[in-house]
Amino acid sequence: METDFAILQRIAGYGENLAEMPFIGIPTFFRTDHVKDWQNVDIGLIGVATDAGLSHRPGARYGPQAVRAQSGLIRYIHPSTKVIPYERARIADLGDVPICNTLNLELLNNEITAYYQRIVEAGIVPLSVGGDHSISYPILRALGKNRPLALVHFDSHHDTAPAMKGTKFHHGAPFRNAIEDGLIDPRRSIQVAIRDPYTEFAAPYARAAGLTVIEMHEIEEVGVTAVIEKIRRVVGDTPVYLTFGRGLD
Amino acid sequence: METDFAILQRIAGYGENLAEMPFIGIPTFFRTDHVKDWQNVDIGLIGVATDAGLSHRPGARYGPQAVRAQSGLIRYIHPSTKVIPYERARIADLGDVPICNTLNLELLNNEITAYYQRIVEAGIVPLSVGGDHSISYPILRALGKNRPLALVHFDSHHDTAPAMKGTKFHHGAPFRNAIEDGLIDPRRSIQVAIRDPYTEFAAPYARAAGLTVIEMHEIEEVGVTAVIEKIRRVVGDTPVYLTFGRGLD
Amino acid sequence: METDFAILQRIAGYGENLAEMPFIGIPTFFRTDHVKDWQNVDIGLIGVATDAGLSHRPGARYGPQAVRAQSGLIRYIHPSTKVIPYERARIADLGDVPICNTLNLELLNNEITAYYQRIVEAGIVPLSVGGDHSISYPILRALGKNRPLALVHFDSHHDTAPAMKGTKFHHGAPFRNAIEDGLIDPRRSIQVAIRDPYTEFAAPYARAAGLTVIEMHEIEEVGVTAVIEKIRRVVGDTPVYLTFGRGLD
Amino acid sequence: METDFAILQRIAGYGENLAEMPFIGIPTFFRTDHVKDWQNVDIGLIGVATDAGLSHRPGARYGPQAVRAQSGLIRYIHPSTKVIPYERARIADLGDVPICNTLNLELLNNEITAYYQRIVEAGIVPLSVGGDHSISYPILRALGKNRPLALVHFDSHHDTAPAMKGTKFHHGAPFRNAIEDGLIDPRRSIQVAIRDPYTEFAAPYARAAGLTVIEMHEIEEVGVTAVIEKIRRVVGDTPVYLTFGRGLD
Amino acid sequence: METDFAILQRIAGYGENLAEMPFIGIPTFFRTDHVKDWQNVDIGLIGVATDAGLSHRPGARYGPQAVRAQSGLIRYIHPSTKVIPYERARIADLGDVPICNTLNLELLNNEITAYYQRIVEAGIVPLSVGGDHSISYPILRALGKNRPLALVHFDSHHDTAPAMKGTKFHHGAPFRNAIEDGLIDPRRSIQVAIRDPYTEFAAPYARAAGLTVIEMHEIEEVGVTAVIEKIRRVVGDTPVYLTFGRGLD
Amino acid sequence: METDFAILQRIAGYGENLAEMPFIGIPTFFRTDHVKDWQNVDIGLIGVATDAGLSHRPGARYGPQAVRAQSGLIRYIHPSTKVIPYERARIADLGDVPICNTLNLELLNNEITAYYQRIVEAGIVPLSVGGDHSISYPILRALGKNRPLALVHFDSHHDTAPAMKGTKFHHGAPFRNAIEDGLIDPRRSIQVAIRDPYTEFAAPYARAAGLTVIEMHEIEEVGVTAVIEKIRRVVGDTPVYLTFGRGLD
Repeated sequence: METDFAILQRIAGYGENLAEMPFIGIPTFFRTDHVKDWQNVDIGLIGVATDAGLSHRPGARYGPQAVRAQSGLIRYIHPSTKVIPYERARIADLGDVPICNTLNLELLNNEITAYYQRIVEAGIVPLSVGGDHSISYPILRALGKNRPLALVHFDSHHDTAPAMKGTKFHHGAPFRNAIEDGLIDPRRSIQVAIRDPYTEFAAPYARAAGLTVIEMHEIEEVGVTAVIEKIRRVVGDTPVYLTFGRGLD
Repeated sequence: METDFAILQRIAGYGENLAEMPFIGIPTFFRTDHVKDWQNVDIGLIGVATDAGLSHRPGARYGPQAVRAQSGLIRYIHPSTKVIPYERARIADLGDVPICNTLNLELLNNEITAYYQRIVEAGIVPLSVGGDHSISYPILRALGKNRPLALVHFDSHHDTAPAMKGTKFHHGAPFRNAIEDGLIDPRRSIQVAIRDPYTEFAAPYARAAGLTVIEMHEIEEVGVTAVIEKIRRVVGDTPVYLTFGRGLD
Repeated sequence: METDFAILQRIAGYGENLAEMPFIGIPTFFRTDHVKDWQNVDIGLIGVATDAGLSHRPGARYGPQAVRAQSGLIRYIHPSTKVIPYERARIADLGDVPICNTLNLELLNNEITAYYQRIVEAGIVPLSVGGDHSISYPILRALGKNRPLALVHFDSHHDTAPAMKGTKFHHGAPFRNAIEDGLIDPRRSIQVAIRDPYTEFAAPYARAAGLTVIEMHEIEEVGVTAVIEKIRRVVGDTPVYLTFGRGLD
Repeated sequence: METDFAILQRIAGYGENLAEMPFIGIPTFFRTDHVKDWQNVDIGLIGVATDAGLSHRPGARYGPQAVRAQSGLIRYIHPSTKVIPYERARIADLGDVPICNTLNLELLNNEITAYYQRIVEAGIVPLSVGGDHSISYPILRALGKNRPLALVHFDSHHDTAPAMKGTKFHHGAPFRNAIEDGLIDPRRSIQVAIRDPYTEFAAPYARAAGLTVIEMHEIEEVGVTAVIEKIRRVVGDTPVYLTFGRGLD
Repeated sequence: METDFAILQRIAGYGENLAEMPFIGIPTFFRTDHVKDWQNVDIGLIGVATDAGLSHRPGARYGPQAVRAQSGLIRYIHPSTKVIPYERARIADLGDVPICNTLNLELLNNEITAYYQRIVEAGIVPLSVGGDHSISYPILRALGKNRPLALVHFDSHHDTAPAMKGTKFHHGAPFRNAIEDGLIDPRRSIQVAIRDPYTEFAAPYARAAGLTVIEMHEIEEVGVTAVIEKIRRVVGDTPVYLTFGRGLD
Repeated sequence: METDFAILQRIAGYGENLAEMPFIGIPTFFRTDHVKDWQNVDIGLIGVATDAGLSHRPGARYGPQAVRAQSGLIRYIHPSTKVIPYERARIADLGDVPICNTLNLELLNNEITAYYQRIVEAGIVPLSVGGDHSISYPILRALGKNRPLALVHFDSHHDTAPAMKGTKFHHGAPFRNAIEDGLIDPRRSIQVAIRDPYTEFAAPYARAAGLTVIEMHEIEEVGVTAVIEKIRRVVGDTPVYLTFGRGLD
């Protein structure tokens, strides 16, 4: 049986703060190391601290700082599966995307895309914490540049609405923008748990584009296992962009 | 396919604020028009801002203002059924019942009844936002005046307690008062989800009067579908007074 | 001595909700009447519900709704001076500026200017509740169009910073924009209580343009009475645009 | 020099919980003993947990419980004057006035008066924690029964308004009621810090009855010392009913 | 049928505050009587107001005061089963364990044990409100002194971790300490709903000691009824120490 | 006149995050750089995240994280004096003192002292953010080791109480401990704004030891300028340990 001291040493090997109390130290995502050198990173945790594309209820700009503060409570091992992610990949907090043009959606989207192009070039798999959902479009401009990705999208909304409120870069349109740029492949893409009160604006485009859609009430009818199987069938072996929308209204 | 502009025009036809952002404009119930002219109204949304009949945990007097503030988030269409209520009826916010005698239960009940008599005369179907549950009795004095109504009542409490705390007009007694005045027909009435900690005071009256009662634990046993069927069977085609109690203790 | 009933009747003459309890009724600014007909209005209370120009700590978009909710506590008479504003002017809540382009600063500024041009044409004196301070520029484009106004500006910041964050329409620049457009007369203008942490960006412009500036520490030195006299001396009899900034940092 | 142990023993003599940590034990006013036997009490701390007479912003019914919870932080000695109240009087928490008729102002006022008559008979000086200000009238019916008291009243409001909202027992009228019943002597009474937005209803009565009134702006003009002297001059050696109103609007 | 008055009299017999409104009176657990004389008590409700053994997120020291404040909302009868606990046992609030050494885990544990030894001697069944889970060990030193008890433990954590953070008396170790002292019998003990992120530290000891463990995911697989049966089978007729951990991380 | 771009470049020279929006990036004290290499640091900002010595109202352990989150709002220049601290010293966030023995006051004090000894050896001037006031003693064991320091202490409490609650390392005793160890020189030390409700325990020691004490009421009598002069006179040119206590009760 491994001694307690040996366990602690092993955890410290995953990241020097991972065995620390959550109230001690500068907060990073899941207490991982904050690194500026991207050489030894497999999975990069990245904050995208903007809600400039949000139509109402602002505050998502504080998302990365809030997730850093709260994720200190999550320990290094999954309590049921006993999986230790840090044994499977080198994981680090890369900080936030530096954004200068915080009040100009077009320019800040360019800043996000430029940052993620560097992530792609570094061979890092990004795990992004927003921010509002509009960030998916500039991220996909970097990730889906060479070939379209499959989309697995959990949300109440389709996020395929047209330009409105004076811009096409709003939080209800990222996947329409991405489809129009050929960044995701609709036939390999699926939207799950949709109950969209903007359905008349967004659903016609989503269905015309060929996205598979599972509405919330369908999940209750067919069950979670069938939904998982359908997601696998739609996606196949295409590389996936997985994303969760907040979806409170 | 209808254009986005045509959809927006259609929504504006339902009510001029219905397509507005929730943070813009004076808040009304569901962003409907606030009307003073009752001529063209089928369903009237009405605030009854009193908690004078409440025994503890005051604050329900702020209910109408709070529901107006929050209901701005609800859009014009149901996300799953795709029903648009505004295509089925003319719906408006009529404001709050004007109450002068806010500290005198008997007099303020008279003010409520007088207001709802005008609603009945105008042929408007009222949807009332309280306020504490004591308001159901003065409302029923207007709605059930010509013939008794069926009651469908979701709550933890029977609300058929006797006079106590110095008055019979308290929030635990409206349906006892209504039965004694012949305003609701107990044989056509049903109380659902009851788990009443004042059961010794209220249950004997409810059952003696002939109300059908489904306790909370029975719902878990028979299932929601059976409960819905039972409600339909009890009510039949009698016009219904449908009401929800808060029921936290 | 006037009877209580006569007082109540007089108050109701000022506005039908002014004698109502604060928790009853749809909230308007100070419980004044919400009017759509601008014919009989001297002073118009107007919400400008946007924080699109704000650099951080969003939420000012909820300002008008929040002020409406809280101002219901303010009664019709000043408790010390006994002044009744409603005897001196016809005052009404005009609602909020309708804004469609909520995510596009340039377009929403145009919407604000267009609305205030109609206010000017109607001969109404506006009292605006923001919203972030960027709204002063589009408002001044309407109010100062025919001749420059004097500015009396209480704030911690100069709000004369250059374009930054991708736009010149941000909340730190309205008075620089207004000066450059000749909408306010710097020699007749004064900024009071300044303690600006962006001083290196904003103060050089303010002083070069000829604005009188009273810093916070100067108020403590010379006293409030001297400050009031200085404001009067600078402004003279030029019509004034009076504005308060929030200024927490 | 007294030892630390001797100090602790002395404090425990004042009341067994007075040296306890504030988070340990059932909360009483200032951590004094809760007594049911009134024999050995000079000053009785009493909760009057009702806001039935309040016109808006309910919650004062929780006043006694809230003051008990927070007053545990107050220690046994005044940090500047070094006065130890418990060396000057026997002080205890008597609990709350038992009120059955919580929804009937007239009956609950009778319950309060009956309780305070027993307090008077027991020779106890009461220190009451409300509750809304309407409780002063039923308390004065007991305390001022044998001869009128002087009133020293700190508040924004006169609390001499007429009957309104369906009752004369509301929180804006207790001292009008008390004057009419001869329970306080207006020529020996003073109201301090008044800035009453209901001034047109209440001030005429207060001044006609002969109450001395110091408005808020007068305090700033004459200074606190002059106000204290005036209070002493008005009151003379008449026994005083001292009371503080909340006065936020 | 029992009259309402007879019901009220019966309730008052259970405890003089049990029929009172929750906002009136000094708060005790469930509004039971606070007694200092332990002669006539079958079940003693006891606060153990410490979180000195807690590793992070302090505040459990306020647990007893918070439960007293909130439990006033719970009425004397179970709304579904109609059981009245006060007819089955004499139940009282005994106050909090007096703790002097609030900053010294070893000494305060001794204070807790000494208190519970008096509870055992008085023949009282204790129902304890913490406080952090470290209190179970000093309580068990009193309750399990004469023979080991069965443990039924609902929690996310095993609470069988080794000494860490400078002490063995922390909130993650009480049952390891108890097993080592022979206070509970592991073969008669069961831990339910475990999903322990410190599993590598605690699980090996729990399983080696012979505790039966049901992890959270197992409950979903076998169902609640099977879990209840397993608990009964493990415990048999051994006297039980039943405890609930908070378990948020 | 310096251009805006030149100003931004200059700020970035002070620290790469100092010109960033407060919601972007991992929060550090005042947005300074977080450094692990202590070579180029004059002033080190250090978190001491413990409240193990606190007698009640825990939470100070979150102090460093909270100050980091809020201090992002503070800009690089003082708005009134125009002083830029970063032009006078190299300032960096050193992170938090690593504490393993979070539940053992004696051992965690040793961890703090060891850390500050390394700070002293590195020639860094520490600015510490607690944590409860007990941390001053282990810090002073490092800072005052070679010769006693002057103490300038703003607080309501003397913090010279004896051992209590099972330890001498509590938050009310750090300066008694420091005086007994010869770490501060009482004749060169001053306590300001004292209004100490534990005065009978702490004041006799403070005065016997020769500390100068200015009570709160004395400040109002002599004025702030006289207090500042007295502080300077007492301290002279002895190196100072400056500290602020929270002091709410």
